[in-house]
Amino acid sequence: MPGELVDDVVMIRDEKEASQIYNKGFYGYPLSGGALELDMLEACYLLETGRIEILQNRKPLTFSQMIRLSATTCEGFEINYIVYRDLRQRGYVVKPDTGDFDFRVFPRGGTPTTSQTKYWVLAVAERSIFDIKSFLEEMTRSERTRKELLLGIVDEEGDITYYKASRSVMGGQSIEGSIPQTEGVLFEDRVMVLDDDEAETLYRHGFFGKKLGKVLQLSLIETAYLMGLGKMKLRAPGTNRGVNLAGFVRKAIKIQPDFELRLRAYSDMRKKGLIVKTGFKYGAHFRVYESDPENHHAKYLVHAIPEDYKAMWPEISRAVRLAHGVKKEILFGRVSESDVQYVKLRRVRP
Amino acid sequence: MPGELVDDVVMIRDEKEASQIYNKGFYGYPLSGGALELDMLEACYLLETGRIEILQNRKPLTFSQMIRLSATTCEGFEINYIVYRDLRQRGYVVKPDTGDFDFRVFPRGGTPTTSQTKYWVLAVAERSIFDIKSFLEEMTRSERTRKELLLGIVDEEGDITYYKASRSVMGGQSIEGSIPQTEGVLFEDRVMVLDDDEAETLYRHGFFGKKLGKVLQLSLIETAYLMGLGKMKLRAPGTNRGVNLAGFVRKAIKIQPDFELRLRAYSDMRKKGLIVKTGFKYGAHFRVYESDPENHHAKYLVHAIPEDYKAMWPEISRAVRLAHGVKKEILFGRVSESDVQYVKLRRVRP
Repeated sequence: MPGELVDDVVMIRDEKEASQIYNKGFYGYPLSGGALELDMLEACYLLETGRIEILQNRKPLTFSQMIRLSATTCEGFEINYIVYRDLRQRGYVVKPDTGDFDFRVFPRGGTPTTSQTKYWVLAVAERSIFDIKSFLEEMTRSERTRKELLLGIVDEEGDITYYKASRSVMGGQSIEGSIPQTEGVLFEDRVMVLDDDEAETLYRHGFFGKKLGKVLQLSLIETAYLMGLGKMKLRAPGTNRGVNLAGFVRKAIKIQPDFELRLRAYSDMRKKGLIVKTGFKYGAHFRVYESDPENHHAKYLVHAIPEDYKAMWPEISRAVRLAHGVKKEILFGRVSESDVQYVKLRRVRP
Repeated sequence: MPGELVDDVVMIRDEKEASQIYNKGFYGYPLSGGALELDMLEACYLLETGRIEILQNRKPLTFSQMIRLSATTCEGFEINYIVYRDLRQRGYVVKPDTGDFDFRVFPRGGTPTTSQTKYWVLAVAERSIFDIKSFLEEMTRSERTRKELLLGIVDEEGDITYYKASRSVMGGQSIEGSIPQTEGVLFEDRVMVLDDDEAETLYRHGFFGKKLGKVLQLSLIETAYLMGLGKMKLRAPGTNRGVNLAGFVRKAIKIQPDFELRLRAYSDMRKKGLIVKTGFKYGAHFRVYESDPENHHAKYLVHAIPEDYKAMWPEISRAVRLAHGVKKEILFGRVSESDVQYVKLRRVRP
């Protein structure tokens, strides 16, 4: 006995069929009286896989007709269906969520009666916007229930990339107290420590800068950080006159408009005892080491982003993919007045 | 006998020393009379490596003083010096260029008297702007002399990433003639071919779209291309009314503002017989196959860029690095009225 399309649900009224469909895969919502109510996603999937028939006005619907009907009545149906179908095909029990997320997924082999939710899932179109503010709200909701947040990003051809999102807490021992006092000379867009001994000592304390022969080159960010700690006196090359922090930052902003944003993230990580170097080679703001960069690889790539950061998903995808390719973790460091919060995105195969 | 700083050159007047310095490494420009003139780059390098002394007003200059002097008199000196020094340390004979480029580099083991120039080199600060128009002009100049163009990009800490730039000519046999006639239904941001047979046939001819069960999903770009060839009839899902190409492109531009730019590049590559799919997963516009994508990896990642495209170098770096990580070539397809020119950037260790 086939199901019947009633408004935007499909009813399976035959008690035996209803219980079979529910018990094998936990599709639908059992009603008192023995019938089963399927939502459009579930009904489309069961129709596509040949497990049910669906009648509308006593005539059977084809899969094409059901897709067409669903897509015209439910917003974002195609995107949801593509992710739902993929997770089902991977063997998960997936239930549509009526709250903040699109689906809940149970652990492999688990069911709504035996297991807790493993993932909250959001199905996202490649063309939608990544908004760090609402993204963090979703993460907070997900964390409150101690579940993982899984994103299924659907590209324009229907391929899905999955990301797991989490907060990252980096940290170690701060070395700020032991940084030596140094004098630097300001050139166009970099600072040089010209005294051989000072250059060597500063480099050895926290791996600041890069040696050019016996001279040490410092980036603008490194210089501003050291000046902020009161560890560096800066001079102009021709006149030898002192340059103060405020004047230096004004100059740096002209060269790099987002200088203060980056400096906040840089200082936050340095304060946590991490060794932070430019991420230019990886197209990121920073590469970050947990220990000695001469003998270890960088563990993280970090982008500093403003509180109200918005980007297109392909941009985010590029950053995650790149970090993945060089075996590093990508963190987006959201800089606010009070702190920096690090969001980690990791590509996964669920 | 030491060299002497005269304006912005260093003169080695001792004939024997002059000829030694010139013959071992081809530094400087021999003058009639036996003296040798070194420019500031060369003089700094020879001073840093302890091969010469330099006097100014009869007093010896330290390396720090020379760097300081050079940086205040020559624009962009630090960047040039970092690249010059690195190439010299790699064992190349490098000569400053007085024309369009910064240096010319001779093949390993080669010298100005035995070899032709191998590379033209541009030393570029990470913070400068990549401008496709002037970049192509530099490439044309370099090609005219049949040399390779090497870019040394210096990051804020003085690390160098080298890129080799060249034009790419992709191509194969066009299959446009044999593409079957198909009917599609327009949903929110994708098109579905709902007829099973048409879906299968179109997919087999050029690997358009992606199967979702028996339905074929097409991207907006694929659809516009097929419509442009007169191979696709498009209908609205509810009313079943026809949608024409102009109306469809207007709708697509609302979803994707650079739609026409991408479509021009897509069509150009399809016309050349390449199989072009979305590059979303790699954060690029397209991934491009030279043959059957079911059994081969994509060879290229392609970004479609406008004629007057400008970007910050870290953005370019990210794209090159990513392509490198997934073993593909990155091409920037510059779309103009008359054609699409593909520029290839490849990270190299010279």
